[in-house]
Amino acid sequence: MTEKGTADENTIFVGSKPPMSYVLAVVTQFNGGTNQVQIKARGRAISRAVDTAEIVRNRFVTDSKIKDIVIGTEAITNEEGRTSNVSSIEIILVTK
Amino acid sequence: MTEKGTADENTIFVGSKPPMSYVLAVVTQFNGGTNQVQIKARGRAISRAVDTAEIVRNRFVTDSKIKDIVIGTEAITNEEGRTSNVSSIEIILVTK
Repeated sequence: MTEKGTADENTIFVGSKPPMSYVLAVVTQFNGGTNQVQIKARGRAISRAVDTAEIVRNRFVTDSKIKDIVIGTEAITNEEGRTSNVSSIEIILVTK
Repeated sequence: MTEKGTADENTIFVGSKPPMSYVLAVVTQFNGGTNQVQIKARGRAISRAVDTAEIVRNRFVTDSKIKDIVIGTEAITNEEGRTSNVSSIEIILVTK
């Protein structure tokens, strides 16, 4: 298994579902034996990504902590071919 | 001027206005001579705080960089006396 493969498997993309859907996905990853999970989101889902990390950390995997938080800007092209910028976040959670 | 006083003055609280309002506030702080600005938000305004930091960094104060990002959970009591948790973010931008 390559390093990239591992990173992809342990990455949860947060979208428009309720936060608990993503919390469950993160907890499942940790219970499967991994010690690092990346939580990624773009645009308005960013606040849900923060909710997800906080709920996991405070309620479900209390020995986990935030290793790093990275924010950035991504260019998105819509159906009409126009490009717009959207903010992104990546929260890296690790267990000790 | 106390250290706390300085920190409060250089903190921008992001709410429900358009991101450019907060971008202007941050840029004004940097133009006033400070070299550190904290951008804070709670709940759904978190994604707007990330937008604010990214727009400042990419378009207006291009020599600024992100020093640290901290996320947390705050307890909020509503009018009926019920307590609920809300996620928070603090993005610290500095100029070199």
